[in-house]
Amino acid sequence: MSFPHRHLLGIEPLAAPEIQTILDTADGMKEILERPIKKVPALRGRTVINLFYEASTRTRSSFEVAERVLSADSLSIATAASSVSKGETLLDTAKNLEAMSPDMVIIRHASSGAPQFLAQHCRFSVVNAGDGAHEHPTQALLDALTIRQRKGRLKGLRIAIVGDILHSRVARSNLWLLSKLGASVVLCGPPTLMPPGIATLFPAGVTHRIDEAVEGADVVMMLRIQQERMSGAFFPTTREYFRQFGLTEERARRAKKDVLVMHPGPMNRGVEIASEVADGPFSVILDQVTNGVAVRMAVLYLLLGGSAEAVS
Amino acid sequence: MSFPHRHLLGIEPLAAPEIQTILDTADGMKEILERPIKKVPALRGRTVINLFYEASTRTRSSFEVAERVLSADSLSIATAASSVSKGETLLDTAKNLEAMSPDMVIIRHASSGAPQFLAQHCRFSVVNAGDGAHEHPTQALLDALTIRQRKGRLKGLRIAIVGDILHSRVARSNLWLLSKLGASVVLCGPPTLMPPGIATLFPAGVTHRIDEAVEGADVVMMLRIQQERMSGAFFPTTREYFRQFGLTEERARRAKKDVLVMHPGPMNRGVEIASEVADGPFSVILDQVTNGVAVRMAVLYLLLGGSAEAVS
Amino acid sequence: MSFPHRHLLGIEPLAAPEIQTILDTADGMKEILERPIKKVPALRGRTVINLFYEASTRTRSSFEVAERVLSADSLSIATAASSVSKGETLLDTAKNLEAMSPDMVIIRHASSGAPQFLAQHCRFSVVNAGDGAHEHPTQALLDALTIRQRKGRLKGLRIAIVGDILHSRVARSNLWLLSKLGASVVLCGPPTLMPPGIATLFPAGVTHRIDEAVEGADVVMMLRIQQERMSGAFFPTTREYFRQFGLTEERARRAKKDVLVMHPGPMNRGVEIASEVADGPFSVILDQVTNGVAVRMAVLYLLLGGSAEAVS
Repeated sequence: MSFPHRHLLGIEPLAAPEIQTILDTADGMKEILERPIKKVPALRGRTVINLFYEASTRTRSSFEVAERVLSADSLSIATAASSVSKGETLLDTAKNLEAMSPDMVIIRHASSGAPQFLAQHCRFSVVNAGDGAHEHPTQALLDALTIRQRKGRLKGLRIAIVGDILHSRVARSNLWLLSKLGASVVLCGPPTLMPPGIATLFPAGVTHRIDEAVEGADVVMMLRIQQERMSGAFFPTTREYFRQFGLTEERARRAKKDVLVMHPGPMNRGVEIASEVADGPFSVILDQVTNGVAVRMAVLYLLLGGSAEAVS
Repeated sequence: MSFPHRHLLGIEPLAAPEIQTILDTADGMKEILERPIKKVPALRGRTVINLFYEASTRTRSSFEVAERVLSADSLSIATAASSVSKGETLLDTAKNLEAMSPDMVIIRHASSGAPQFLAQHCRFSVVNAGDGAHEHPTQALLDALTIRQRKGRLKGLRIAIVGDILHSRVARSNLWLLSKLGASVVLCGPPTLMPPGIATLFPAGVTHRIDEAVEGADVVMMLRIQQERMSGAFFPTTREYFRQFGLTEERARRAKKDVLVMHPGPMNRGVEIASEVADGPFSVILDQVTNGVAVRMAVLYLLLGGSAEAVS
Repeated sequence: MSFPHRHLLGIEPLAAPEIQTILDTADGMKEILERPIKKVPALRGRTVINLFYEASTRTRSSFEVAERVLSADSLSIATAASSVSKGETLLDTAKNLEAMSPDMVIIRHASSGAPQFLAQHCRFSVVNAGDGAHEHPTQALLDALTIRQRKGRLKGLRIAIVGDILHSRVARSNLWLLSKLGASVVLCGPPTLMPPGIATLFPAGVTHRIDEAVEGADVVMMLRIQQERMSGAFFPTTREYFRQFGLTEERARRAKKDVLVMHPGPMNRGVEIASEVADGPFSVILDQVTNGVAVRMAVLYLLLGGSAEAVS
C-alpha cells in the first residue's frame, strides 16, 4: 500500500490503518538503526528543510538523524539567524523555500495551524514538528510505537495523561491517536490547566486527582510543566505542583504491575516526575527517544513516496 | 572554455562573455534542479565553507542547497557562535580556515572589500555573498538569468531600479552587469538615498519620480528598504515612502505590457511594493529565488574547475 | 595494533606508545588532506554528534571537517538553541542523545570532568574537545604532531609554555603529553596565573620571567590571555601584560635559532604575542591548524575501530 497522504499535519486527519502503517514501517526502520552501518540510500537526492521557529534539541536532532540515515540532503534554519527577524511573513518565507525546490519542510512554529498553512500554499510535503498548542504528531506516533512494542497493542489499554493538558500539543496528538486506536484515556491536571469541555471532544475521562488517574493504568504519560507557568495564576509553586501532581514511586504503584511510565522530555525532575520513577524499571522514556528516530524515518519515507512493503 | 577566474568578488571584474558563460552554465544547472533526484557528483570531496558575518536566510540557504546538489562537503560558520566574538581579526580567521584546506569560502561581511581581502591573502577560492554596500554578484547574476529566460536577452532593455540606491550592493552589482550586457538603466529613489555623481560612474539615468522611472520599462527592480533607515534623516515615514516610491498596480501599468517586476527579498509589503504587485502576473520574484540556486551551482562549479561544456 | 581506548578524555590516561600511534595515524591522515579529492569512506554510516556548550569556531570546524573527510554523518548542537536552556541536566541530555544511537559524541563543556561523566554513563565513544580548566587533548596532540614534524622527535626538547597556566586546559594537556614523551618543560606566567604547587605534580620548571623561560628553548608555546581576566586581580592592564610576558622578536631571539613558536589561537596580537613573531619565520601557528584536522581524523578513526595500519 502506498501511503495516501503527502503531509503529516496532525494525527486528527489519519485513519487508524494509516497510523498502523506508519508504526509498521517504523518497526522496519528500527532494524536499520541497530546496524553498525546506519545508512540506506532511500532518500538520496531528496532535500529536506528543517524550519524551527522554536528552540528544540531533541526533536530537531531526531529529525536530522533520521534524514542522514536515509541519505536525504538536509538544511536547518533556526529563526534567530533568519529573515524572520527582518519582518518577512511566514508565507513569504515558505514561498521562498519552495522556490528552492525542497521535497519536504519540517516545521515547528508557535502558532497553531502554521504547518497546515504551508501545506495549503506550497508544493512541498509538510511535517508538523509541533505547532502551538495544536498537535505534535510524531511525538504521539513514537509514544504509540513504544506502547505497541511493549504491550503488543493499544486497543483496550487504560492510559493516564497527567499534567498541563491545556497547553500541551503532545496531549492533543495523543488524545487523537489513542482514541482512534481504541485505548481508554484518563486526563489529569489542575483545573486551571484542563481545557473546559475536553471530555465532550474526546472519549476521555477527566480527574483532578492523580491517584485516581493512575489507578489501574497500563500506561502513565507525564507531561512537561513549562517553568514559565509556575509563578502565574496556574498554580502556586513547583513544590506544591509536585505534591499534588508529581509522579512518585508510591503513586506509580497504584498502576498495573507492568505499567509503562512515559515522558516526552525534557523532564523537570522533582516537579512533574520523581527521579526514582524516571530512572526506574517502569520507565520507557529513553525507548521513546530511540523510537522517535524510527518514527521520523518512517514518516519521511512514506510521505516522500516509499511504499510500506519496500522497507528493508 | 574553462572559466578564467578563481574568485567571484563582484561583477565589475567580469567581461561580458564571462557573464554569459555563467548564465549558460546556470541554464544547465537548472535542469538538474528539475529532476526528481537532485544530486550530481560534480564537487564530491571538495570542501566549501559558508562564512556569514551578517544574518541571512535566503542567500545562505541558497548556497547550501547548491553545495548539496553538487555533492560538496560544506561547513557553515555564523559569527554569533564564532571566535569573532573573541576579537580575532578577519585575516586570522581566514588564515585559520585556509589551514584546514577548504577549496572555497563563501563570505558575507558588513565591510566592503572583505572578500577581496581574503582572495589576496588566502589560497582558497572566494565568493562574495554580499560585502557592505559594495557588491552582491550572485544576486545580479540571478537577476540577469531571470530576465534572459523571459526576454531572451538583456541588450537594449529598459530597466528601472527603484529604492535605496545609496546603500544597495544589489543595485551596484546590477549596474555593473546591466551596463556590461547593454541594458539601459534608470535609477530612482529619494535624493537622500541616491549616491551623488552616480550617473557619472555608470551610463544610467537618474530620477526622483518613480512614475518617470517605470514609464516604458521592460523590467522594474524594487530594492528592499532597511527598516533602520526609516526613522532617520532619509525620509519621514514608511507610509510617506510608499506614497512616493512604492510600486503600486497603477504605477506598474505605466511600464511595458509584459514588464517583469523583481525584488531581491525579503520584501516589505506595503512599503516598497504593494502586495497586489508582488503576487501579481508581472512578478518574477520567486523565479529569482529558483534561479539563485542555479546561478550559485554554476559559480561553484566554474570556479572550482569545471568547464562550461561539461555540465550535463 | 588496534587502539585500546574507546574514549579520548585527556592525555593523562594515555601511554606514550598510544600517543605515538595517534601521531603516526595522523601523519597518514595528513596525506588524505593534501589530495584534490579529500574524501575517504572510512566512517560511512557512523554518526558523530558535536555537542558544544561553549562557543568555538576553530575546534568545532576542525572536527566537522575531519568528520566530512571521513564520510561520517554528523550533527552539531550548540547550546543556545538547545534544551539546556530548558534546564535539563547534562546526564538527561546525554542519555537522550545516546538513545539516538550515535557512535561518538564530541563534547566541549565549561565543567572539568563533563566528558568523563558522559563516558561513564553512556554507550557512545566520547572525545573531550575541552573541559573547563582540565584537558583539551586534541590540542596537545596537534601541538605534538607539529613539533614532531619539524624536529623529528619530542624527547629531550626544551619547551616553554608561557601565559595563563592556571586556567589553561591547553597547558595541562601539554604538560601530560610532553612529560610522557620525554620533553623538558618550563612554565612561565604571572604568579597570580600559576597554579600553586604545579611543579610538584609535573616534572616542569617554573619561572615568572619570560626571558628565562625562552632562553635556549626549542619550542615556545604562547597561551591565549582571556580578555575577561584583564581587568581583574590577575594583572593590571594588557599593556603591562605585554611588557612583562608578551613574546617579542627580541625575546624570541633568546631561544634556539630554529625555535618553533606556537599558539593555540585565537591570538590576541599585541597582548601575549607580537604580530612580527606570530607572522614571522619561527611561527608554526597555521601548521598547528592543519595538523588539528589530521589529528582529529586520527582520533575519530582509531576510537571508532579503525586499526592504525589500515590508514591509506
